[in-house]
Amino acid sequence: MKKTGIAVIGYGGMGNWHTRKIAGIEELELCGIYDISEDRCKVAAENGIYAYPTMDALLNDPRVELVTVAIPNQLHREACIQVMAAGKNVVCEKPVALNHKQLQDMIDASKQYGVLFTVHQNRRWDEDYRTVRHMYEKGTLGPVFRIESRVHGSRGIPGDWRNQPEYGGGMVLDWGVHLLDQIMQMIPNKLTSISATLSYVTNERCDDGFTVTLQFEKGPTVIVEVGTSNFINLPRWYMLGENGSAVIEHFAQDGKIVMVSDWEKRDAVPVVTAAGLTKTMAPRTKETIQEYPLPKQTADVRDFYRNVAKAIRGEEPQLITHAELMRVMLLMEAIFEAAEENKVITDFEDRVSEVIR
Amino acid sequence: MKKTGIAVIGYGGMGNWHTRKIAGIEELELCGIYDISEDRCKVAAENGIYAYPTMDALLNDPRVELVTVAIPNQLHREACIQVMAAGKNVVCEKPVALNHKQLQDMIDASKQYGVLFTVHQNRRWDEDYRTVRHMYEKGTLGPVFRIESRVHGSRGIPGDWRNQPEYGGGMVLDWGVHLLDQIMQMIPNKLTSISATLSYVTNERCDDGFTVTLQFEKGPTVIVEVGTSNFINLPRWYMLGENGSAVIEHFAQDGKIVMVSDWEKRDAVPVVTAAGLTKTMAPRTKETIQEYPLPKQTADVRDFYRNVAKAIRGEEPQLITHAELMRVMLLMEAIFEAAEENKVITDFEDRVSEVIR
Repeated sequence: MKKTGIAVIGYGGMGNWHTRKIAGIEELELCGIYDISEDRCKVAAENGIYAYPTMDALLNDPRVELVTVAIPNQLHREACIQVMAAGKNVVCEKPVALNHKQLQDMIDASKQYGVLFTVHQNRRWDEDYRTVRHMYEKGTLGPVFRIESRVHGSRGIPGDWRNQPEYGGGMVLDWGVHLLDQIMQMIPNKLTSISATLSYVTNERCDDGFTVTLQFEKGPTVIVEVGTSNFINLPRWYMLGENGSAVIEHFAQDGKIVMVSDWEKRDAVPVVTAAGLTKTMAPRTKETIQEYPLPKQTADVRDFYRNVAKAIRGEEPQLITHAELMRVMLLMEAIFEAAEENKVITDFEDRVSEVIR
Repeated sequence: MKKTGIAVIGYGGMGNWHTRKIAGIEELELCGIYDISEDRCKVAAENGIYAYPTMDALLNDPRVELVTVAIPNQLHREACIQVMAAGKNVVCEKPVALNHKQLQDMIDASKQYGVLFTVHQNRRWDEDYRTVRHMYEKGTLGPVFRIESRVHGSRGIPGDWRNQPEYGGGMVLDWGVHLLDQIMQMIPNKLTSISATLSYVTNERCDDGFTVTLQFEKGPTVIVEVGTSNFINLPRWYMLGENGSAVIEHFAQDGKIVMVSDWEKRDAVPVVTAAGLTKTMAPRTKETIQEYPLPKQTADVRDFYRNVAKAIRGEEPQLITHAELMRVMLLMEAIFEAAEENKVITDFEDRVSEVIR
């Protein structure tokens, strides 16, 4: 098998991660990296990776068929278009762009130059997500009416580009882009309603957290939430079906399913609280429910690059499509609008239709 | 001390509860009950409680100064006004009425007949609530920016009046009236924004759950949620302050506080997830956080009736005021409107001002 030559532009945290992943993928051969920082180029050399002296040197290397762009967000458009103009296929890091116009320019360039263009939405391969999606698609819990996807941390936003809007900072763009993409992948139904609140606990200029409520046509209500001032975490996933509930506590997939096993036995024993009693909220007795382990799914994030290599050769369709990328970008814009103007957005699908033709 | 004579109209689940509570309150003397059901009157007699043969007999008993009305919700207005017209003070069960106009009629009657009128908002004495309120008011967690109050059960709505809107069914009126009252008591700030979704998992005619988002001026964002198809519960309370977080799992107050103890030590160790790594969401190490037990508060729900007895004698102001009742009733109406019309309500305080003069 001929390997696809790949180079990485930007050798920061994620650029470094890419080179290490690429090393384990049979379909790819790492030709080298380019970074504007000489120090980072030295680190690459120390790691046994060739550092191109200039961007042009990288673009002029005929062995390079594919370029991963892992530089600051606000530079994605310019760099990706430059790479595509040189006839190279492109994987861009997320968030792909700061707004949907920038993304449209990149998609247009892909068509103009006849090259592949996609984005590293790697969290489609998160195993916790795969497990939730498996349960959703199998109907494990019966018809699902609510899904809650949360990521909680307590470090605020790191004091780098992540707290500056010009650089595409903020948690909607940083983590929302993953969590929203996961939900949009899982639920193909029309999105009928979007509301959102943003938090500014440790920052004034960028959202350091958000809570988004999505309503899908004939589908579930979905909460997507990120918090960075949460010293106690709520579960990563919480899913409610008509016949049972599921929880996944962490990325590591510790959690459980609880299903009803006897609808008929109305064995409510009232709960005595300090100030009263309740029958509606009485816990079920063991005889009417059954606990199950999660149907844990595995995934290999290297399948992302394997697909890109095969898509370049025309052997497989591109997994992460332009339409999907645009849909998530428009959703993030709608979230900012809903939060800033404190309103519910109900014309999302019309907005999508106007942009994706 | 002269005891205040009290009678209870309606000897169902809550009427029964009232007679038992009253028995333990020194300031009160139970004169008897009245119920339209002969069977229930027999049960009362078996429990050693006098059952008036007619409503008039109860109202004509000069020993009765105070009447607790614990009959179906849709009958509250008529019964309470009848009792007040007879010169008796009234405690009404919750929800006090089906809408704010009914409540206004009751408040007007209280003024017209010069008697006390209040509502059994007993969950102000829930100990879990008292503990949260204590932390909020003491600033235990630093400035609080988010509070989440949830009650989750898995029995759907009981198949009685609770699933019929004509009888004041649904979870907003049944549980929301408590949870919203707790929040409105705790946070005196202006309420600037209300959004809400209702669920209809086991019912078509009444909401069997809801999620409400409230934003207070210069105050926290508050989530109030009830679910009745939740086989796994999220915590009863979740509160986020700038310096720490608190969780209370159940009514029984099992939970904890986690506070930051070292802001400076930026000791993030990236979390490796299946498909990537994250520094923002890396858990803190033990050296930078400290866990504390909850400052558990106790409360005695009998203080509700003690206050009513003293308020009748002019010794104390009435704890649960007409303005508070009206505010919560208008909030519940706003929640129905926000959910049904799928919009954010931002003129709540104007609505309150129009009604409460």
